[in-house]
Amino acid sequence: MAPLAPHPLDPLRPEEISKTVSILNNAYKGHTLVFRVITLAEPPKAVMVPFLEAEHQGIIDQPPPRCARVQFYQDVAAQFYEALVELETAKILRQEHLPGRHSYVDSTEMEAAERACLNAAEVQDVIRKLGLPEGATVCIEPWTYGTDGMNDMAERIIMCYFYMRLSEHGDANHYAYPLDICVEMSGDLKVKRILSLPSGQNDRCGEVSQVGVQPFDRNKIHSTREYHPDLVTERRTTTKPYYVVQPEGPSFEVSGNLLTWEKWRMRVGFNYREGLTLHDITYDGRSVFYRLSLSEMFVPYGDSRAPYPRKGAFDLGSNGAGVNANALNLGCDCLGHIKYFDGYHHTIAGDPVVLPNVVCCHEIDDGILWKHTNYRTTNAVVTRSRILVLQTIITVGNYEYIFAFQFTQDAQVNYEVRATGILSTAPINLGDSVPYGTMLGPGVMAPYHQHLFSLRIDPAVDGQKNSLMVEESQPMLVDDPAVHNPFGVGYTTVTKPVEHETPLDTDVSKGRVFKIVNENVINPITGGPVGYKLVPHYSQMVLAHPSSYHFKRSEFGEHAVWVTKYHEDELFSSGQFTMQSLGGEGIASWIRSRAPLDIRNEDIVVWHTFGTTHNPRVEDWPVMPAEKMLVSLKPVNFFTENPAIDVPISTQERNGSVLVKSNGDGKPCSQQNTPQEHASCNQ
Amino acid sequence: MAPLAPHPLDPLRPEEISKTVSILNNAYKGHTLVFRVITLAEPPKAVMVPFLEAEHQGIIDQPPPRCARVQFYQDVAAQFYEALVELETAKILRQEHLPGRHSYVDSTEMEAAERACLNAAEVQDVIRKLGLPEGATVCIEPWTYGTDGMNDMAERIIMCYFYMRLSEHGDANHYAYPLDICVEMSGDLKVKRILSLPSGQNDRCGEVSQVGVQPFDRNKIHSTREYHPDLVTERRTTTKPYYVVQPEGPSFEVSGNLLTWEKWRMRVGFNYREGLTLHDITYDGRSVFYRLSLSEMFVPYGDSRAPYPRKGAFDLGSNGAGVNANALNLGCDCLGHIKYFDGYHHTIAGDPVVLPNVVCCHEIDDGILWKHTNYRTTNAVVTRSRILVLQTIITVGNYEYIFAFQFTQDAQVNYEVRATGILSTAPINLGDSVPYGTMLGPGVMAPYHQHLFSLRIDPAVDGQKNSLMVEESQPMLVDDPAVHNPFGVGYTTVTKPVEHETPLDTDVSKGRVFKIVNENVINPITGGPVGYKLVPHYSQMVLAHPSSYHFKRSEFGEHAVWVTKYHEDELFSSGQFTMQSLGGEGIASWIRSRAPLDIRNEDIVVWHTFGTTHNPRVEDWPVMPAEKMLVSLKPVNFFTENPAIDVPISTQERNGSVLVKSNGDGKPCSQQNTPQEHASCNQ
Repeated sequence: MAPLAPHPLDPLRPEEISKTVSILNNAYKGHTLVFRVITLAEPPKAVMVPFLEAEHQGIIDQPPPRCARVQFYQDVAAQFYEALVELETAKILRQEHLPGRHSYVDSTEMEAAERACLNAAEVQDVIRKLGLPEGATVCIEPWTYGTDGMNDMAERIIMCYFYMRLSEHGDANHYAYPLDICVEMSGDLKVKRILSLPSGQNDRCGEVSQVGVQPFDRNKIHSTREYHPDLVTERRTTTKPYYVVQPEGPSFEVSGNLLTWEKWRMRVGFNYREGLTLHDITYDGRSVFYRLSLSEMFVPYGDSRAPYPRKGAFDLGSNGAGVNANALNLGCDCLGHIKYFDGYHHTIAGDPVVLPNVVCCHEIDDGILWKHTNYRTTNAVVTRSRILVLQTIITVGNYEYIFAFQFTQDAQVNYEVRATGILSTAPINLGDSVPYGTMLGPGVMAPYHQHLFSLRIDPAVDGQKNSLMVEESQPMLVDDPAVHNPFGVGYTTVTKPVEHETPLDTDVSKGRVFKIVNENVINPITGGPVGYKLVPHYSQMVLAHPSSYHFKRSEFGEHAVWVTKYHEDELFSSGQFTMQSLGGEGIASWIRSRAPLDIRNEDIVVWHTFGTTHNPRVEDWPVMPAEKMLVSLKPVNFFTENPAIDVPISTQERNGSVLVKSNGDGKPCSQQNTPQEHASCNQ
Repeated sequence: MAPLAPHPLDPLRPEEISKTVSILNNAYKGHTLVFRVITLAEPPKAVMVPFLEAEHQGIIDQPPPRCARVQFYQDVAAQFYEALVELETAKILRQEHLPGRHSYVDSTEMEAAERACLNAAEVQDVIRKLGLPEGATVCIEPWTYGTDGMNDMAERIIMCYFYMRLSEHGDANHYAYPLDICVEMSGDLKVKRILSLPSGQNDRCGEVSQVGVQPFDRNKIHSTREYHPDLVTERRTTTKPYYVVQPEGPSFEVSGNLLTWEKWRMRVGFNYREGLTLHDITYDGRSVFYRLSLSEMFVPYGDSRAPYPRKGAFDLGSNGAGVNANALNLGCDCLGHIKYFDGYHHTIAGDPVVLPNVVCCHEIDDGILWKHTNYRTTNAVVTRSRILVLQTIITVGNYEYIFAFQFTQDAQVNYEVRATGILSTAPINLGDSVPYGTMLGPGVMAPYHQHLFSLRIDPAVDGQKNSLMVEESQPMLVDDPAVHNPFGVGYTTVTKPVEHETPLDTDVSKGRVFKIVNENVINPITGGPVGYKLVPHYSQMVLAHPSSYHFKRSEFGEHAVWVTKYHEDELFSSGQFTMQSLGGEGIASWIRSRAPLDIRNEDIVVWHTFGTTHNPRVEDWPVMPAEKMLVSLKPVNFFTENPAIDVPISTQERNGSVLVKSNGDGKPCSQQNTPQEHASCNQ
């Protein structure tokens, strides 16, 4: 049973969602409120920090009041409002109209757009003219409308891309048959335009009403690549079972949203937009991070032909990593002993909805943590690395992203992203090609694109006052009388503090390292400040031109590292409202819009942009083997020795490995490593 | 039982070692041969490739004759010879004197040097003058002499660094007490010089005979950081057991040195110098790599004061990754079902010696391989990634390195290096500091250094004729009438072939990708050549100045990627003889020394330099949590779809995970996920 009262950082509970709804419905009597967001309004840091500090010392202060942040339509989407509701007192602390703003995608809205699209008479007419083969099922893939400057963004538009499958199976790979039709649907489910997509390098987008409909080229029909097991008849039988067995259960303890594991302690959060968030992260009682979260992600496509520049998905701001989180299945997504956390959301009417199993928590073994053999005594001492994994998986249309925070016994935090799922495909004429896409099959092209992620790191390294240092490893000069470097091998580190909010670039050639330090806490051994360093995932930054909407709307994609002074509500590095945004509201704009803010020894936030330039390969088809990206945060002179010096020593008693011997015919025979060797199996 | 006849790529067997020895002893009757190397002379590629091709087709050709490469002293180290011996015919095909060359470190030689050093009267005298505390045990750490231009390199010199422990325990951390004495020992075990090490930033190396002996500063005595479990009294009890259980055994099969796993097939090699080597690597019957190995590694130190520029260890060429490989312990180093491979070596008299368990082979689960959920049907399909690991661990003095080749079900190859073990420490006066080292404790400084690795990739992507392509992702021009990029989002890939042997640099800002392709084999779907791409580990290159011996001796450290035309005996990118080398014999020199060689559609070799600039942190003390470095080789349009589309679907039946629920007090209670929930435990 969860504790009776929610912790100030706990997500809103179903009953709190209901209460919020009734408060607002009461206040807006006579109107129909369409609830798009009902989420915890995290208390301001100025209030939370003292509360948490007291709590860590066992003092339970009066908690700050529970508040809900709500976004809703008053009757119609054009009347888009945001409100801040205080639950206990039922007060509406703030409410404001958000003219020109759009809510994130509503899946019911998308489904309604699909249906309306398919049912529209003019669309049916176009489908007929396509002359699809017998047994074809048309599948629509609705996309948010990434701004390209061609439309008034005040109007909500959904791009309905068309695909087809010839198999009856509901999970047949319709991406294998992209059709050259795309329907622009308005938010009120009307057909705005029917586009004829460019199907060759020199082809251009047109409107079907002007250029007509090209009949589907039957030569494109092929033996499609499928992923669903019903449709993949030959399957390997060579992979033997592999179980993770934890006879004493896992090493973590969970009480409500409070999670403790191997000296780590943190609170697990979850919301509709960011998905998994982590709060008040401490190691062995020392503060490390105030909050860790994915701030935004952006998937810009590199196909220059209209309408494809509209393909630029903000999967958090416009889709929601929380609402799109998979309900994880025991034994499918994770191995071993799994604890799940549910999320709480709501219908548009405001009825609470449980999102079951959206976060899983489990351990993995990551091999050797540390080892040393003293060659003089031949005594080997080895320890194994046990890692805690907190993971969510989102499905956003064709793609899946697996987000995992990992905590290690040596006080390291990793953030791993895996991209999998299915490539977004576009139609192409047989025999044609484009310089910004890969052919996957006859008539099937996968356009180039990037996946860019913005990890938001709100540090509290031994406290809230932190600084960002940039350290480089530089060769010492040779032939300089002031420098003692007679053999030319010397190198030193040069460290410079970052004084103001700014973007920064990685430069591995200089050994550039970003360290978040607390200059008020000096390591007694090294004489320098305690800190954590960022180990970036080196990535190419956004390729779109600075004049483009891809560039202007994302902002975070321009540089690998950003540092800002903490501001309440600066959570999303492309801005609060990404849906059909025009840009100018992201992290670059925040910095530019204000006088240089001192960030030395202040409450700072560090943002890391990383990702992958994804120029598809055929191996990514029909479903992509996960591409892994890893970011780490490692203690640097935070401790006075290896924090994992005390982990259990790795022994056969603890680990129970099994020796495999091979017999003459090459087949392994397994046996326990007993002193008496198994007679029937010899090496 | 291993097959009767060795495969041409199998390491020399004990009986073959003995036979080699007797052939040479016979030929050199009257002399005492000191055997430094007796290893397989791999047959020339021109012979091996046709043999392997026939073998793959089930035809067993007449195998090439088994030959041994031998390096030995004829009575004295100055008479250093290399011979090529054909075993069957007992012929010595080649023998040559190697004047001025040094063999790699001999551990017995090192131990003898330690003993001779400690026992030398003048050293005993110095130790007395140090005035060490009661109960001190002096420990000597012998180091190879990295060339610094100060001595005639024809003479073999061993640097004996001095440490001390105060504990009686044989594994007490003597690195906590570095002494400021270093003894130069000659190869014939005489004391050459006794050095007084620089102990402050402005301190300089001197000879004890001139500057005297500084008594040990008793204020340096402290509560030392220890790693041995006998000496670390408080140990975590929170880490619960974690077993990997494989009830049907592992998925691999081993017959002799032939290993097959999940469509991979390869031969496992091992030798004194490179340690683990892999040969004739195919996936699903298609050739991918001819040979994979670590070519060299170099650990240059950045402390500019004499004698520290001599600290530049070539752990393969000068120490030997094979001879220093740990005998892995079941259950300690690896989890699950483990197959071990032994190595074979010999005493200096030529008696064969088994190096047991030097390579371990096992599987790991690496999380989700691919997943997709069709939101229309809500059907989720997920597979898990099973990885094959072939691992060795070497101990070279203070440090350990864990080398693992990993093979995945989606036809990827990873090379992971973990650095662990103990930092090399140097003495420093209390209150002093240096700009190229980290303080670890009173009087204990850990100098900055780099770990640089050279991975040798001998590809055979669908055959021996390969090319190296460099691809970059470039934004399309805006405002250029010839370029259709109206929205500024377009980007394309530009691919250039590498025409001649050359070094190359990484550049992630350009999305630079190195692809090894076979231009003669065109992917029917993409229309381009099949290939594998290198996913580098982005690293800072060697920091030492080009005029330094560190730089000149290593060569590979200058650039991240090198490509050469295949040459027999070009295996070691710093050259054949690194021991006290002068440079000029590594990969840069090979390329410079010859006219530009065509490497387009040729038998090429690709070399990747990666590593870490290691500026120690206190968390690395007293033993370092493993720092991981990962290189990958991924198929790019080698296949016609995801090669892992057919792996088993992940289900609870296959995986047997366990649901963890938490009860009110926060302690998890584990239970099987049965339809009826366990009554005594609720959420």
